[in-house]
Amino acid sequence: MAKVSAKPLSGFIELKPLQQVKFNEIVDSLKQKLEIFGFMPLDLPIIERQEVLIDETDKNETQNQMYLFEKGENKLGLRFDGTVGLARFVAGNANDLTFPFRRYQVGRNFRGERPQKGRYREFYQCDFDIIGENTLDSSYEFEIINLIYELFETLKPYVGDVIIKVGSRKILNEIFNYLDIEESVRQNILIFIDKKMKVSRDELVEMMQEYIGQAKAEKLYEIIEGDYKKLQGLTPELDEKIAELSVIADMIVNITGAKNVEFDLSIVRGLGYYTGVVFEVFLKNEPSLGSVCGGGRYDNLSDKFSSRKFVGVGGAIGVSRLFVPMIESGAIKLDKNLVDVVVIAMNASNNSYAQVTGNRLRDAGIKTIVNIDSSKFKKKLENANKLDAKYIVVIGDDEEVEQLVTLKNMDTGESEKISVNQVIEKLGK
Amino acid sequence: MAKVSAKPLSGFIELKPLQQVKFNEIVDSLKQKLEIFGFMPLDLPIIERQEVLIDETDKNETQNQMYLFEKGENKLGLRFDGTVGLARFVAGNANDLTFPFRRYQVGRNFRGERPQKGRYREFYQCDFDIIGENTLDSSYEFEIINLIYELFETLKPYVGDVIIKVGSRKILNEIFNYLDIEESVRQNILIFIDKKMKVSRDELVEMMQEYIGQAKAEKLYEIIEGDYKKLQGLTPELDEKIAELSVIADMIVNITGAKNVEFDLSIVRGLGYYTGVVFEVFLKNEPSLGSVCGGGRYDNLSDKFSSRKFVGVGGAIGVSRLFVPMIESGAIKLDKNLVDVVVIAMNASNNSYAQVTGNRLRDAGIKTIVNIDSSKFKKKLENANKLDAKYIVVIGDDEEVEQLVTLKNMDTGESEKISVNQVIEKLGK
Repeated sequence: MAKVSAKPLSGFIELKPLQQVKFNEIVDSLKQKLEIFGFMPLDLPIIERQEVLIDETDKNETQNQMYLFEKGENKLGLRFDGTVGLARFVAGNANDLTFPFRRYQVGRNFRGERPQKGRYREFYQCDFDIIGENTLDSSYEFEIINLIYELFETLKPYVGDVIIKVGSRKILNEIFNYLDIEESVRQNILIFIDKKMKVSRDELVEMMQEYIGQAKAEKLYEIIEGDYKKLQGLTPELDEKIAELSVIADMIVNITGAKNVEFDLSIVRGLGYYTGVVFEVFLKNEPSLGSVCGGGRYDNLSDKFSSRKFVGVGGAIGVSRLFVPMIESGAIKLDKNLVDVVVIAMNASNNSYAQVTGNRLRDAGIKTIVNIDSSKFKKKLENANKLDAKYIVVIGDDEEVEQLVTLKNMDTGESEKISVNQVIEKLGK
Repeated sequence: MAKVSAKPLSGFIELKPLQQVKFNEIVDSLKQKLEIFGFMPLDLPIIERQEVLIDETDKNETQNQMYLFEKGENKLGLRFDGTVGLARFVAGNANDLTFPFRRYQVGRNFRGERPQKGRYREFYQCDFDIIGENTLDSSYEFEIINLIYELFETLKPYVGDVIIKVGSRKILNEIFNYLDIEESVRQNILIFIDKKMKVSRDELVEMMQEYIGQAKAEKLYEIIEGDYKKLQGLTPELDEKIAELSVIADMIVNITGAKNVEFDLSIVRGLGYYTGVVFEVFLKNEPSLGSVCGGGRYDNLSDKFSSRKFVGVGGAIGVSRLFVPMIESGAIKLDKNLVDVVVIAMNASNNSYAQVTGNRLRDAGIKTIVNIDSSKFKKKLENANKLDAKYIVVIGDDEEVEQLVTLKNMDTGESEKISVNQVIEKLGK
C-alpha cells in the first residue's frame, strides 16, 4: 500500500527530543520567573466561538489567517493570540478575580500565514498582563517593564543582551494635539512612525507629509527623534504626560541601571488599541530579527463581553519565533546527556536487583534507565553509549552477593565498586 | 451594542487561576517523574493532515468526533490522541532516534463528543511509550508497568491508592486457539470481555454464546475469571506465554510488593491493535470512575508511514478527565497562598527602595508582588489580604533610612523590623 508522508505540515514546528528538552527548559524558566513576580497561570481553550475571535467592525488580515470551521451547529475557530480568550475570561470571571489581576499564559496560537522563515502557523507565545477594573495606576506600567527586564535577564544565557525600547502613546497624542494634527490621519501617522527603524529620515518625512504637510512632518520627525524630556513647556497637558513617564523612567533607571532600557517616542506599535506606554524588545546581537517582545497599555479589554470596564498593561514574547530557529540552527547548544545513569544487568538473574537499584537512584532524582532486556552485555553497553549516559551501573552476580554495584564514568572510563548509597551521594541532585 | 457571551463553549475546560496552579503542579510532577525514568519530551503539532488522522480502512466513531477543516488547499484536522502524531514522527525521524526510544507528551487532544460529565472536547492526555525497531523485548512491558506504578505513587496525594490491572492478549489468543474459537469472532468476544466489570456472569456468557455456543462461553468465562498461572498444561504455546508473563509478574511483585498490581485475563481493552500485555488503572476509592490510565503493547505503530517496522508498549493517563473534576469539586484542595510576600511602599518617595527590595526577594526565589500604586496604605493592605499573601513587607521613611524593612506575618499578626537578608533567611527557598 502506498505510504502516507511522514513529514509535518509546512509551517509547523516539530522539534526532536533533545531540542524539545531545551525549548521546555527555556519556557519553564520564563514560567518560574513569572510566578516569582506573582503572575498566575491561565490555560484557556484553543477552540473559541467565531463570534469571540472575529471583530465584526474590523475585518482585517488576521481574520483571513484564522482557522475557522463548523462542528454540528457551532461556528468555531482556533485562537490566534492570547488576548482574545483573556478578554472573554476576565469578563466572565471578574467576580472571582482580585484586581489588579496578574496572569500569564504560555500557549499555542494558530495563524494560517504564508509560511516564511521564522513564521509558524502553530506557535507558542508567552503572554503576561496586569488587568485592573476601571483604572490602573501607571505604576503597573513600570511593573511590566521591570518584569520584562527580569524575564530577559533569565533569557540572557540564550539570547544575550537586549534593548527594551519604551514609547508613550499618551505623549505622542499630546504632540499630535500640539501640532494640530487631525484625528482622522493619526492612525496613518502612527503606522508610518512604526516603520521609522526600517526607513530613512527623508522617506519617513515624505510618507507623513502627504497627510500633514512638509512642515509638520519635519517637526514631528525632529520631536520623535529627540529626548522626550526636552519637550517640556510646549503645552501643560504634554508636560503632565512627560512628568508621568519620567516617574516610571527614573524608577527603571534606578532599578536596572538603564543599560537595557531606552525611551524612544518612535516606538508606537501599529495596533489601534494601545493608550499608554508601549514597548518593544530587540536583541543587541541580532537587531535584524526585529521585535522579539512587545506590548503596552490598553483600555477596554473586554467591552465586547461586558459592560464593566477593564484596562490593562501587558506584553507577549514570541517564544517559538525566537527560540525554535536558534535551537534548530545550533545557536543555542543542546544538552548532550539526558540520562544520568544506565543500569545494566549482566544476567537475567540480576534483573530484580537491577530494577531495585534503578528505582532507588530515581527516588534520589537521578535520571535512570534500567536495561534488563535479553540482549548481550555488549549490546547493552552500546545502547548506553548511544543514550550518551554519563555513568553506567553494572550489576552482576558478584555485585548482587556483595550488595554493591559497579559505577563506571563514561567520560573518564574510571570504574569503582561501591554501594548504591555511595552512588547517590556522588550523583544525587 | 449587544454583548457577546463570556462563557466558554460547552464541553471545554476553563480553570480559574488557583485551580490552574494545582493542575499544573500535578502535570509537572508527572513530567518530572517521566524524565527521571529517561523518557524524552515530544510536543508534536496539534494540526495534522487529514490523511494522517483518518484511517481509511476503519471509519469509526472517532472519525465522526474529529475536528476537520480546510485551509487553502489543505485538508486538515486536530489530533484526537497522542499516538497518531507519534506514529508519523517515528517514521519520519527514525534515523535520528536511539531505539528503544522512550518518549512522553502531555498535550491537548480534541474530540467533538456529545458533552457529558467528565468528558471534554479539548483535553490533556499524558502519553508515554517505548518504541523499538523490529522487536521489543518483553522487559519493556515490565518497564512500563513499573513506570505506571511509580507515576501513581507520585499521584497518590491527589487520588489515593490505585489498582493496576494487567492482562495479556497473547495468553488470551492462545486460550482462543485452545478453545478453537474462530478468528472472525475474536474481536467481538474481546469487546464483550472488555465489559466484564460492568455486567453479571450470566449476561456476559449470554453475549458470548451467541458467537461461540454456551459450552465454550462458560469455559471461557471460567478461564478469564481464574488465575492465569493455573492454566498451565493446556497447550505448549499457552505455557510459553504464561511463562513469559510470569517473569514480568514476579518482577512486579518483587518491586512493588504487589499491593497495587493484579493480573486479570479479563483486561483486554477493546481496541484492535494491542498484541501483548494490556493494562488499565482504577482508583481504589472511586472504581466507578472507570479506567484512569490504559495501554499495552502494540505492533505496527507506523506501517501507514514507513516500510520499516516499529513496535511499542505504552499508555496514557487522561489527566484532564481525572483531575479537572476533582479540582473543580474541591476533592483536591487548592493552595490558599500563591504569593509569599506583598511589599508595600508607605509613600511615593519609598517606591524605589520598595522595588529594589522586591527584586532582591524575587532573586531569592520568594514569590513577591510590590505595591507602589498611588492608593492609600489601607487600600494596599486590603489588596494584600485579598491576595492571601503570607507576609507583607512594609517600607516607610524610617525603614528606608535604617535600610531595614518591617516584616509582618499575616497569619499571626506578628511584625518585626529586620534587614532584607534576614527576610530572605526566614522565607527563602
